[in-house]
Amino acid sequence: MKAIVNVHLKPGVLDSQGKAVHHALSSLHFDSVNDVRIGKQIILELDENDEAKAKDEVSKMCEELLANTVIEDYTIEIVK
Amino acid sequence: MKAIVNVHLKPGVLDSQGKAVHHALSSLHFDSVNDVRIGKQIILELDENDEAKAKDEVSKMCEELLANTVIEDYTIEIVK
Repeated sequence: MKAIVNVHLKPGVLDSQGKAVHHALSSLHFDSVNDVRIGKQIILELDENDEAKAKDEVSKMCEELLANTVIEDYTIEIVK
Repeated sequence: MKAIVNVHLKPGVLDSQGKAVHHALSSLHFDSVNDVRIGKQIILELDENDEAKAKDEVSKMCEELLANTVIEDYTIEIVK
């Protein structure tokens, strides 16, 4: 079973990496871009067949290691 | 219109960040994890209403700036 975890800075937290990329895109004349936010996508291959259990386990991993929940939000998607 | 770009290392390219997180998860007794791959998720807010045009534009951004196509693959998803 595969879990896809997306970790992004919470709205309101300054995303300096996103700002830098936005600026770089403007320099390259991509003028249709209004905003850029950059996060992490973590793909986990799990030895677990129960979807609910897998989601629970991954949620714990996010709280303990994968995300800094003070400044970051995360979403979990279980596939296959 | 919003574009979600996922950038990941190509299969076969060593993902040292993924390896480090895998090791850290093992240390925390998350033993059900077989593999970890870490990539970037870039969310772009675009001033463009045509979905095909938006995808084309974002594809150019990936080739020129967002991804290193020698070692990275990317996927583009247009939402709303």
